[in-house]
Amino acid sequence: MSSTDKPGDTEHRPTSSTPAHAPAGVDYFKFDVILRFLLFAASLVSVVVIVTGNETKFLRPAKFRYSPAFVYFVAALSVAGLYSIITTLASLYAIKNPALKAKLLLYFILLDVLILGIIASATGTAGGVAYVGLKGNKHVNWNKICNVYDKFCKHVGASVAVALFGSIVTVVLIWLSAYSLHSRVPK
Amino acid sequence: MSSTDKPGDTEHRPTSSTPAHAPAGVDYFKFDVILRFLLFAASLVSVVVIVTGNETKFLRPAKFRYSPAFVYFVAALSVAGLYSIITTLASLYAIKNPALKAKLLLYFILLDVLILGIIASATGTAGGVAYVGLKGNKHVNWNKICNVYDKFCKHVGASVAVALFGSIVTVVLIWLSAYSLHSRVPK
Repeated sequence: MSSTDKPGDTEHRPTSSTPAHAPAGVDYFKFDVILRFLLFAASLVSVVVIVTGNETKFLRPAKFRYSPAFVYFVAALSVAGLYSIITTLASLYAIKNPALKAKLLLYFILLDVLILGIIASATGTAGGVAYVGLKGNKHVNWNKICNVYDKFCKHVGASVAVALFGSIVTVVLIWLSAYSLHSRVPK
Repeated sequence: MSSTDKPGDTEHRPTSSTPAHAPAGVDYFKFDVILRFLLFAASLVSVVVIVTGNETKFLRPAKFRYSPAFVYFVAALSVAGLYSIITTLASLYAIKNPALKAKLLLYFILLDVLILGIIASATGTAGGVAYVGLKGNKHVNWNKICNVYDKFCKHVGASVAVALFGSIVTVVLIWLSAYSLHSRVPK
């Protein structure tokens, strides 16, 4: 048994037969947990901010529930929040059980991609409608509403911005998993 | 050296040193090329359909260019189309040079994820605004416009549907790359 190994590889030494040849790979599971927690926080903040934005002016209320786009947005971010709780726990579990890691990295990529599609499209949908509310559209006579519903618009804008941050976190999560998986492939 | 390994490891037997242990992995590059071509076709159709939807009724034209949401949509899908041409060529090149495959799979995942974010958000943006055009929104007095601009709305709707198909193709592409990369990791 040589004792000249790189520090990280010691666990593979004792058996010199095949399974031990798997490269240890770079272990980013701690970052993974942090990012998943960030995603959870972003989803939660985003949902809470848009839901609390209801405002009434001149007896006419503005509620996120009046726009199908914002309803979809809240539903999508709620799903993302729930998903991030479950996968944070899965990621923590993998830190204790390293044998699961390669398999889990694959599942994380497969599922994270779906969640990315959902968050990104929801952010786009809510952002697109919010932009019409902000600027209006002269060509079709859609009046801007943000000059009236000031608080509501601020809440929607902040919520969309936080969701955009959540999308970016999800992209980084997938990058991390892909890189980590690739580092386990023998050269 | 114990010879009591699990049955699945037989291919690792002949050489006991590392590089030869790389599992061949499942090779999905042919599917990859087909899917990337599909993504190109979807992007092209989607852009062409929305751009050709311009319509004039009662001397008032409806053009995709009048809505920032649709402009973003066209830009995003054009980027996706260009990207899919480049990566189709890269994928074809990898079929001839198998040594590149593991590396390329990683790059494909990293970049495809970005493109997915772009297409999904653009589809959401255009879809959200198109839905307002279709149904209107009584609460803020945004009138529906699809009863007037029939052809324009059909083109926008078809274009968004094709872009949604493109997003799904991108998800499948990432799944394929992730699965293929995972199959190269030693058990």
